[in-house]
Amino acid sequence: MKYTIKILSHDKELQAQKDDVLADKILEAGIDLSLYCNKRGLCGKCFVEIVEGDLPPLDERESFLLNLRKFEKNFRLACLYKIQSDLALQIPEKSLLKETFVLKSGIPTPITLNPAVKKYYLALKKPELRSPSSLLESLESKLQHQGHFLPLNLLKELPAILEQNHFQVTAVIYDDQEIMALEPGNTLNKNFGLAIDIGTTTVVVELLDLTTGKSLAAQTAMNKQIKYGSDVVSRISASTLEPKNLEGLRHSIRNTLNQMIQKLLREAHASSDHVYEAVVAGNTAMNHFFLGLPVKTLSVAPFSPVFTSLLAQSASDLGLEIHQHGKVYIVPNIKSFVGGDISAGMIALNLDSQKGNFLFIDLGTNGEIVLKKGDEFVATSTAAGPAFEGMNLSCGMLALPGAIYKAQKKNKLAITTINHRPALGVCGTGLIDLLAIFLEEGKISPKGTITVKSKRIPIARTIALTQKDVREMQLAIAAIKSGIKLILKEHGLKVNDLDGIFLAGAFGNYLNILNSMKIGLLPGIDRRKVIFIGNSSLAGARAILLSQAARKKIETLVKKIRHFPLAANPLFQEYFIQALEFKNYSV
Amino acid sequence: MKYTIKILSHDKELQAQKDDVLADKILEAGIDLSLYCNKRGLCGKCFVEIVEGDLPPLDERESFLLNLRKFEKNFRLACLYKIQSDLALQIPEKSLLKETFVLKSGIPTPITLNPAVKKYYLALKKPELRSPSSLLESLESKLQHQGHFLPLNLLKELPAILEQNHFQVTAVIYDDQEIMALEPGNTLNKNFGLAIDIGTTTVVVELLDLTTGKSLAAQTAMNKQIKYGSDVVSRISASTLEPKNLEGLRHSIRNTLNQMIQKLLREAHASSDHVYEAVVAGNTAMNHFFLGLPVKTLSVAPFSPVFTSLLAQSASDLGLEIHQHGKVYIVPNIKSFVGGDISAGMIALNLDSQKGNFLFIDLGTNGEIVLKKGDEFVATSTAAGPAFEGMNLSCGMLALPGAIYKAQKKNKLAITTINHRPALGVCGTGLIDLLAIFLEEGKISPKGTITVKSKRIPIARTIALTQKDVREMQLAIAAIKSGIKLILKEHGLKVNDLDGIFLAGAFGNYLNILNSMKIGLLPGIDRRKVIFIGNSSLAGARAILLSQAARKKIETLVKKIRHFPLAANPLFQEYFIQALEFKNYSV
Repeated sequence: MKYTIKILSHDKELQAQKDDVLADKILEAGIDLSLYCNKRGLCGKCFVEIVEGDLPPLDERESFLLNLRKFEKNFRLACLYKIQSDLALQIPEKSLLKETFVLKSGIPTPITLNPAVKKYYLALKKPELRSPSSLLESLESKLQHQGHFLPLNLLKELPAILEQNHFQVTAVIYDDQEIMALEPGNTLNKNFGLAIDIGTTTVVVELLDLTTGKSLAAQTAMNKQIKYGSDVVSRISASTLEPKNLEGLRHSIRNTLNQMIQKLLREAHASSDHVYEAVVAGNTAMNHFFLGLPVKTLSVAPFSPVFTSLLAQSASDLGLEIHQHGKVYIVPNIKSFVGGDISAGMIALNLDSQKGNFLFIDLGTNGEIVLKKGDEFVATSTAAGPAFEGMNLSCGMLALPGAIYKAQKKNKLAITTINHRPALGVCGTGLIDLLAIFLEEGKISPKGTITVKSKRIPIARTIALTQKDVREMQLAIAAIKSGIKLILKEHGLKVNDLDGIFLAGAFGNYLNILNSMKIGLLPGIDRRKVIFIGNSSLAGARAILLSQAARKKIETLVKKIRHFPLAANPLFQEYFIQALEFKNYSV
Repeated sequence: MKYTIKILSHDKELQAQKDDVLADKILEAGIDLSLYCNKRGLCGKCFVEIVEGDLPPLDERESFLLNLRKFEKNFRLACLYKIQSDLALQIPEKSLLKETFVLKSGIPTPITLNPAVKKYYLALKKPELRSPSSLLESLESKLQHQGHFLPLNLLKELPAILEQNHFQVTAVIYDDQEIMALEPGNTLNKNFGLAIDIGTTTVVVELLDLTTGKSLAAQTAMNKQIKYGSDVVSRISASTLEPKNLEGLRHSIRNTLNQMIQKLLREAHASSDHVYEAVVAGNTAMNHFFLGLPVKTLSVAPFSPVFTSLLAQSASDLGLEIHQHGKVYIVPNIKSFVGGDISAGMIALNLDSQKGNFLFIDLGTNGEIVLKKGDEFVATSTAAGPAFEGMNLSCGMLALPGAIYKAQKKNKLAITTINHRPALGVCGTGLIDLLAIFLEEGKISPKGTITVKSKRIPIARTIALTQKDVREMQLAIAAIKSGIKLILKEHGLKVNDLDGIFLAGAFGNYLNILNSMKIGLLPGIDRRKVIFIGNSSLAGARAILLSQAARKKIETLVKKIRHFPLAANPLFQEYFIQALEFKNYSV
C-alpha cells in the first residue's frame, strides 16, 4: 500500500509505504528535521502538525512531551509516527535543525547543533510490587538505553533526587553513554558549556548555551603562566629544570580559567552546576601544562608530545570549577608543537572542504602554518614570540578595551581603540598598521632602524614605538615570513599557486591585509584571496563544543596531517635572515 | 586457487582459498584456538608450527613474540598468517583455549578463559623527527586500537614508565577499552583477580590467576556487619533509622574484605598492584551496603533496589585495596531482595542451558529460590536467618576449620570436623545431619520439642544442641520449605514435575541430601535429582571474573527473570505455619 505525504510547510510531496517512520521520510525529502535524541522519542524536538490523515492516540511519553512543548492536540512526534494513511502535514520552524556559525569574521561555516551534552526531561514510572525494578532500571528504561556509566556518588543520590519531584527528573547525558547529572524537575533551559582558547599569552573563555548554540558572554585575559616565561620554550625549560614549576604552570592556567569562568557566570546569571562541558583548544605545550603532563619529551628532538587525542577528561580532576561531573575535551594535537589550537582552527575554517591550495596561518606567540596542497596537509610551527599579542613591547598590550587596534594615515595619524576607550597601548593589529605607516613615511627603514632622532615615534599621549619594539616585531614577522616561504618552496608551490590565505590570531578584531603585505608579514597576492578570520582557535573550540560531528571530524583529520619541522631544514637560517627586511614579496 | 591444509595434531584436513587467514580456517575446523587478543597479533597465544608449506618472513611484532614465547623459527601466528600454499601444521597444546571449571562440587560447567583484564607485553617504536608521534599514539598503534580511556595520572607517568625499560612495557587493558596500568618490562605472569562472595553472615574471597584461571588461595570470614544485626532486615533498619550506620555498614564490609585480601596476598606472595579486578556477588542488601547506597527503597514495598546492573566501578572509590585503577564488577541483581549471589549461582550452574524444570535453592541468611519452568524463570527470596550458617545458635559456627560439618549415627554419634581439627562448634551441614539423627532417635519431636529431660542434647565435649537452637533451625527450614511449596503450587507444578534441585550454600563442604529430606528442608524426590553445588555465589563470581562471555550472559539473563513476592501471597502465612513441622513431603 502506497501513501502520499504532503509537506505543506515545505511544498513537498512524497510516497511512503505502510509503517514507514514519518521522520525517515521527512529526512529523505531533504528537510533537516531535528532528531536531537536520535529518534528515541525523548526530546520532543520533532513534533509535526498532522493537518490531514491518521491521528493515532498519544502514548504516555508523547503526551508528556506534547504538554511540555505546548503543542496542539494534532501534533505528533515524527520519530514515533508510523504512516497508516495519506497525510498532509506542517513542520514548525522549531522542529527544524538549528545551524550556527562559529567564526565571527571571515567565512561563514555553518555547523549543526548537536552537542555531546544533552538534557532530557523524564517522568519515571514508580516501581510496583509486581515488578520491583530498580530505580536505575526505571531511569534507563525511559532513556531507551541500558548500561550508562554513572558516577557512584550520583547513584547514591538517586533515591533522594527522584523523591524530590515525584519521579520527574532532568537527566544530563554525555555522549549517549554517561549519566552526568540528574536534576529534580525540569531544568532543560539551563544547559551551558565553555569554549576555551588557551594561548601562550592570551586566554579567551566563552560561555555558550548548548541548547541554542548562542554565546552568552566572553572574557579575555592574560595567561598567568607568563611569570614562567613569555614563550613556550622558556616555560618548558622552567618546568623541566625545576619539577615544582610544572605544578606552578598547571595552577596558573587553572586559576586564570577559574577566575574567568566566575566572571562569565556572574555576567550571565548562571550557576557552575549547569556548566557541563568545556572544550579547550591550545597549542601542545599549553594543553600539556593544563593537564599537568611532563613536557620533557617536548623539550628535546624529536619533540614528541605525550598525547595527540584523548577521551574527555574529568573537570574536577583538572580543577576546573564547573559541574562536579563535568567534562573537559581537549582538542587533539597534530604533531610536535602544532597543537589543538591549529586543529580547532581547521575545523572553524572547514579547511578540508575547501577546494585548492591554501595557507592557514595562526599568528600567536607560537606561530603555526598549515599548507593544504590539494588533499595533502602539512603543518609547521615557528616561535614568533608574543609581539603580535602586544607583549614584550613598551607600547604593547593585549586586545582589550583601550587597545589601539587600527591606525590610518590621513592628515595626521588617526587611531581607533577597542570599545572607543582612551588609548592605553597598542595591540597586534594596531602594531601592523603603525609599522606600515611609519615604513612608508620613512620613520622606519626597511632594515628596521628608527630614523627619527629621538629613536621614539610618538603614537598617542604617553604611547610611543621604540627601537626595541620595532626589533621585536621584526623578529616575529621574520619567523612567519621565512616559514611561509620555506613550506611553499619545499612543496613546489609559488605564492600565486595559492587559492587563498586564512589568517588567524587572538591579537585584535581587525587586520589590515594591505598593511600586512607592505611589511612582508603576508606575501603579495590578490588581496581578495586573504581572509582574516580572527580567533579561529576559539571558534573551533566553539564548533567542537556544539557539534559531535565536528569532534569526530577533527579526530580523524589530525591523523592525516604531516609534520614539516622548520628548524631541521638546512635552508631555514638563511631564509630567516633574509626575512628580517620589511618588504613586500610574492615568490 | 584452492589449497589443502593438513592439521597433523588434530588429524584434520581442510580446503582454503589464497589469502584466507589461517586462524579462521582452524576455527572453522572446530578447533578451539586461543584468540586472546581477538586476532590483533598482540598476545602471541595462537602460534602454530608450519611443518610444510609457505614460511613467510617474520614481521617485527611476530618476531618479538616468537622470542618471548620461545618457539622455534618455523612457528607463525595463525591470526596474522595468510595462506599462500598447501600446508601441514601442528597446533601446540598451549595454543588451544583453556577451559576451567568454576563449581567445586556438583556439576561440571566448563568456562572458557577470557577475562576482562588482559596483559600485553609490547616493544614500542621511539618517536622520530620525521613524524614526532605522541607517546600515547605510539602505544595505541601497538595496541591496534585508538581512543582508550586512560586515567590522567597514568598519562602523567607515561614518559617515565616508557623510559624505564627502553620503551618495552606491559599494558594492562580492561575490556579492550581502557588502559588500566602500564608496567615497565615484562610482567605478563603477574595478573590476578578476586572472586568475592559477600554473604549476610559469611564472606568468602578467592585469589585467582587470570592467565591460567587457577585458584591461588581462598579465605572465609564472618561479615563484620553482624554488629548491625544478624539478618538483612535488621541491617536495613539500622541504616535507615540512623544514617551514619550506612557509613558504618560500608566500612565494616570494606574492612572485612581488605583484611581478607591482605591475608590472601601474603599467602600467595602477590602484590595488590597486580590485582586488577574483583567480582563481587552478594544479595541486594549486601551489594548496596558495599557500594554505600541508601537502602530506604529496599525497606518499604515494593522493595526496589537502587540498581540492577552497573558498569564496573572504581576499586579506589570503594576503598578496596587492589591496584589503584582496579575495577570492581558487581554481579547484577535480579529483583528486590533476589540479588547478585543468585544470578552468580545461575551462571555457575549454567541454569539457562539445562533442559526441563528445576529448582535452584540458595540456603543463606537470606534464602532464595529460583524456579526454572521450561524457558521461564521466577525468583523469590525468604528470610531464613543465619541458622544455616551456624549463627545465633549456642552450638553453631561458620564453616571454618574445627566446625562439625558431618554427623552419622553408627553405634554412637560419629562427627567429622573441617580439616579434622578438634570440634569447636557445628556448621550448617552438620546441623542438618544432627537434626535428622535426633529426630529419628526421638530426642526431638516432629514439632521440634527436645524430649530429653535436660533439654540439651550433647554432641561433643562442651558442644550441645539446645531447645533454642532447634527453634532457630525450625524457622529457617520453614522459610525455605514454605517458599518451595508456594512457588511450585502457584506455577502449577508438583514435586515430581521437577527434573532436578540444585542446592547451594556457603554453610559447609558436604550436604547429606537424605537427611535434608527427612527434616523437610527438601521435598522427597528421587535422591539422584538433588545436587549439592556448594557456594555457587562464589563459583559464579569466579566464572564472571574469568569469562567476559559469562558477564554478558548474566546481564541479559537477569532481565528475563520474573519476581514472585512470597510475603505478598495470601497463602504464605498458612504455608509457613504448616512448614514448621519436621517432616518429609513430596507434593
